[in-house]
Amino acid sequence: MRRQTAVVGILGGMGPAAGADFLRLFVDACAARLQHDGHTVNDQAFPEHWLAQLPIPDRTHALQDTSPGTHQPLEPMLQAVGRLAALGVRHLAIACNTAHAWHTAIQERFPRIDVLHIAQEVALVLSAGGTVRAGLLATEGTYSSGIYQKALADTGLVCHIPLEAERSALMHGIYKGVKAGDLKLANRQFQEVASALIDRHALDVLVLGCTEIPLALRELEKHPQVQLIDPTQVLAQALADKALGACSD
Amino acid sequence: MRRQTAVVGILGGMGPAAGADFLRLFVDACAARLQHDGHTVNDQAFPEHWLAQLPIPDRTHALQDTSPGTHQPLEPMLQAVGRLAALGVRHLAIACNTAHAWHTAIQERFPRIDVLHIAQEVALVLSAGGTVRAGLLATEGTYSSGIYQKALADTGLVCHIPLEAERSALMHGIYKGVKAGDLKLANRQFQEVASALIDRHALDVLVLGCTEIPLALRELEKHPQVQLIDPTQVLAQALADKALGACSD
Repeated sequence: MRRQTAVVGILGGMGPAAGADFLRLFVDACAARLQHDGHTVNDQAFPEHWLAQLPIPDRTHALQDTSPGTHQPLEPMLQAVGRLAALGVRHLAIACNTAHAWHTAIQERFPRIDVLHIAQEVALVLSAGGTVRAGLLATEGTYSSGIYQKALADTGLVCHIPLEAERSALMHGIYKGVKAGDLKLANRQFQEVASALIDRHALDVLVLGCTEIPLALRELEKHPQVQLIDPTQVLAQALADKALGACSD
Repeated sequence: MRRQTAVVGILGGMGPAAGADFLRLFVDACAARLQHDGHTVNDQAFPEHWLAQLPIPDRTHALQDTSPGTHQPLEPMLQAVGRLAALGVRHLAIACNTAHAWHTAIQERFPRIDVLHIAQEVALVLSAGGTVRAGLLATEGTYSSGIYQKALADTGLVCHIPLEAERSALMHGIYKGVKAGDLKLANRQFQEVASALIDRHALDVLVLGCTEIPLALRELEKHPQVQLIDPTQVLAQALADKALGACSD
């Protein structure tokens, strides 16, 4: 029996390694969902999906510097989404947390596409799990856009963020670490900031709100009991659910 | 300094997990190449690339059963390549060994796109490394299409293939193992056939000529000294070289 699937799209390239990781998580989520629903898992059971990875100007930089000459990411993102729309994409995931600062602009320009929102999907999962407060590791751009603070507040959760110097350490780990291929450096920066944030607010849930962070932070050395939420994983699961239709249970 | 890059495409979905693995290898190959050339590795340095993963009828089945009712993979592959061409793709990689049975048909239909050939790329690498004969693990479709036997012969190499019962064991490992999510079963099948083939022909190079095989066969238990060639890796490297332009050294 062939199920009705929807064509879905992934806007990546921010960075490309994170986009590749998102695709893997999406394919795994589809396979798990098909198995769970009792369907045979073969090539033809998967939903049609398209991934665009383009050079998109730095998101955090654009949010911090709004002077006229700054390269803005919105225009190339809109162009890529337009091309994905022309390919028949009905549901779209953006494989970058910071890029969600432009979520409203993208959704408004393409009202016929369902553009998933990474922070809203995370808030739903946290809320369903009974969490009342969580820490957030992210880029300066994601912090200043407030997408997680707002999405968590909208579902009644408190979002704790690191101090200014710690936020700089995270940026160093993301840009000089993950994006430049030095995962060891990145892990060291992420571990330190995570520990400080967890100790300060006695947290038991930490959201890794940048697609690059989970690539270098698989577990916490000092707080192995703290639950790590990977929004990339949550978004990939949500996109798989959209692609494969309503859940059967 | 910004280098001139070419837009490249990946035709996947055969299966989707192999397509995701190919994408990861391609992104890694681009990063390694940029580093090697002394370029800064950041999001914007990567070439634009598009990945299409669509439900494409089984390739081996189509090669074995050419009766009128059989679902043929060529038509949906041509449609997908046409859409990738419209996106501006100049170089294309097909993330499935067996699908290369239709390489000539695809290349003829789209003469302005450079469609890479996985077996020819592997033959070049083997030849450059001084190899004179190699074993091939693949699907029945790939064996019967003869793409590797021909590509290796064209560069003066001998290609050894398993016996009929061993080829059935490989198919079982690919379809009931990797494609169905049982990597343990797959590994057992692949290890046994690999050992028999290596012993029979005293081989020291084995080509894993199906994108699903490397997902379940990372090393050989009985012959750790035998070199494993992953054509997916070779093709990803070749596509990265095309996307990033001529090598500087």
